[in-house]
Amino acid sequence: MPIVKAKPFDFELNINHTALICIDMQRDFIMAGGFADTLGNKIANVQSCIPVIAKLQEAFRRNTLPVIHTKECHKPDLSDLPVAKRNRGNPSLRIGDRGNLGRILIDGEAGSDFIHENYPREDELVISKPGKDSFYRTELLDYLYTRNIGSLVFTGVTTEVCVQTTMRNANDRGFDCLLVEDGTDSYFPEFKEMTLRSLTSQGGIVGYTCKSEDLLEMLK
Amino acid sequence: MPIVKAKPFDFELNINHTALICIDMQRDFIMAGGFADTLGNKIANVQSCIPVIAKLQEAFRRNTLPVIHTKECHKPDLSDLPVAKRNRGNPSLRIGDRGNLGRILIDGEAGSDFIHENYPREDELVISKPGKDSFYRTELLDYLYTRNIGSLVFTGVTTEVCVQTTMRNANDRGFDCLLVEDGTDSYFPEFKEMTLRSLTSQGGIVGYTCKSEDLLEMLK
Repeated sequence: MPIVKAKPFDFELNINHTALICIDMQRDFIMAGGFADTLGNKIANVQSCIPVIAKLQEAFRRNTLPVIHTKECHKPDLSDLPVAKRNRGNPSLRIGDRGNLGRILIDGEAGSDFIHENYPREDELVISKPGKDSFYRTELLDYLYTRNIGSLVFTGVTTEVCVQTTMRNANDRGFDCLLVEDGTDSYFPEFKEMTLRSLTSQGGIVGYTCKSEDLLEMLK
Repeated sequence: MPIVKAKPFDFELNINHTALICIDMQRDFIMAGGFADTLGNKIANVQSCIPVIAKLQEAFRRNTLPVIHTKECHKPDLSDLPVAKRNRGNPSLRIGDRGNLGRILIDGEAGSDFIHENYPREDELVISKPGKDSFYRTELLDYLYTRNIGSLVFTGVTTEVCVQTTMRNANDRGFDCLLVEDGTDSYFPEFKEMTLRSLTSQGGIVGYTCKSEDLLEMLK
């Protein structure tokens, strides 16, 4: 089996049972004028993963391996939006309100859609999720079982929120998880750095991390 | 409603709908000679939360509020142990093997049981969980709905692993989550510190943290 140089150990790339998962590459989290930007988050800090993810998507597609996309968003009627999530901190602009890119974090609105650089192909799974965890109230687990996927390569934003949460839950479910270090970003570089370290601590308690170049080499 | 001084905002203590959750205060993670100790983890770093948790347990019991205990462990036949979890890093001592305190992380063995300082009372819920997340394959969510619990006070070990994972998943499920800063510990103080900061960043994206003295004052 191909071996990818990784931390804390080399990663066996079980090539026919691996999927790429791209977490929340949505306009509202990444683009100028989006929800995160209007909240004062440093969107400049989440740009560098974009071309890396594009390269990985291309490599997975070339190898006819699944590419999965998640987006955090809610139903237009807000029925899947926890009260605590909407109200916390009594913000001036809430989920469901009208923002610069349509209603904030509502499925189908421009802001909750994906950035064009990492846009899903028509034949790729798109998971709309109401939480940070991509397994909660979604079809992800069924899809992975159906396709015999046992390993997940993680990319996306933000590292310590939706990426970490999904990776920790995937690990609980028995998946081998590899996070691409330069394929994930956070508004807070110190959170990204510490998250990468904690995921791989104690002998890879949650999984592995690697550099994109080492993974791309194996996918040539 | 009583208000507890907390980060990033004060926390409304919805006293009749709140439970204390004590994560994984197990011998194998905390005591000398336990599994964590034999792996080389610094168990000295996870001692200071013990008396704090004991005080909180006493205060919740005095107010007849639920105290919930979780433990990470597997069935004796290992049927709920993911292959990846058992084999990762090819360790010399694996889950299910015989260690200093019985079979490692197996339900019913001495090592997977709770330390005496924070031991559950007979009438308190004990959750045996195969993962880091206390909701995965457990009865926790049903219990919380049945008892009309909407707020969770978090304590236990380790901060960045089982505590954080459960708190993030509780937040996805709509619970108001308050983590007691001195009621949780990690083998790695820098992971604890960064986890507390990341949970409360972006306007309390996962929830709140407080000092035990401020919470205990409200429970007097």
